[in-house]
Amino acid sequence: MKNIERTIKSDKLYQGKIINLRIDTVELPDQKYSKREIVEHPGAVAVIPITEDNKIVMVKQYRKSVEEYLLEVPAGKLEIGEEPLDCAKRELLEETGYKSDNLQYIFKFYTSPGFCNETISIFLAKDLIVDVAQPDEDEYIEIEKYDIDELIEKINKEEIKDAKTIISILYIKNYLK
Amino acid sequence: MKNIERTIKSDKLYQGKIINLRIDTVELPDQKYSKREIVEHPGAVAVIPITEDNKIVMVKQYRKSVEEYLLEVPAGKLEIGEEPLDCAKRELLEETGYKSDNLQYIFKFYTSPGFCNETISIFLAKDLIVDVAQPDEDEYIEIEKYDIDELIEKINKEEIKDAKTIISILYIKNYLK
Repeated sequence: MKNIERTIKSDKLYQGKIINLRIDTVELPDQKYSKREIVEHPGAVAVIPITEDNKIVMVKQYRKSVEEYLLEVPAGKLEIGEEPLDCAKRELLEETGYKSDNLQYIFKFYTSPGFCNETISIFLAKDLIVDVAQPDEDEYIEIEKYDIDELIEKINKEEIKDAKTIISILYIKNYLK
Repeated sequence: MKNIERTIKSDKLYQGKIINLRIDTVELPDQKYSKREIVEHPGAVAVIPITEDNKIVMVKQYRKSVEEYLLEVPAGKLEIGEEPLDCAKRELLEETGYKSDNLQYIFKFYTSPGFCNETISIFLAKDLIVDVAQPDEDEYIEIEKYDIDELIEKINKEEIKDAKTIISILYIKNYLK
């Protein structure tokens, strides 16, 4: 299938700390034009840290965009030039205080491709070693550990609401069967 | 847990067709300040249309943000004042040409709460009746039907990359067991 949305014009409206915003004018197959609002994001990783007794290490933090605390898997944005695997190790240590040299790539996905190019790569982290958490200076994070089935229940009760976390937990539920 | 990010200032940078962008200046517990880039989104629904022989009706469409065709579950944005259930019925018909009066709400989630308030509510649609698809004038959509296990394989091979679709398929895989 060929690209059916040829870019006629691209206007950069905002260049920010984490995201950029641009408006593309595209030509459609019937020669009509349409506008596409596009949020550019550097990409991110999510980590599923699993302990020897099959508990998942989760982080709870305040999310300004939705004005509530969310229970999530550890995650973070890619720094410039950073490989996803290195980012996963770094974010695991920073947010949870665990180190691991046994990270296994699972898959990556787009969070909301209707308007945003953000990709999240998921890693499974085993053989966790206790170290010291090093959160960013504007991050306030609490660590909690749960069994998979507790997390599945939290998804069904909408106590877990974050896409990367739901994907990670549903995946690992199948994986551990 | 109390709200630890008090809004000091909120600047609206862009009011668009689908999304808005604002920058909030927040005060953190240690009296430091930080900026939060926030994309406002009206919310959306996703539908898992399942046929009597357990096939899932999928849509393939070009996504400008990531410059590729994606295989997804039918989905769409909420119109102003529209209930998620009504939106799910409408999008199912518009995108696939199927009607259903048997839609079951599953759960909702945030696509990327680090910077965006988008919520997607997922519905399971059964008892599908053939009608006529009515795509929006700037939508070009192809319909394809798959078994669940084919879709699971496509997730593992990264041929399905969209968060709402991965969540829907992993959920339904567990549900149908």
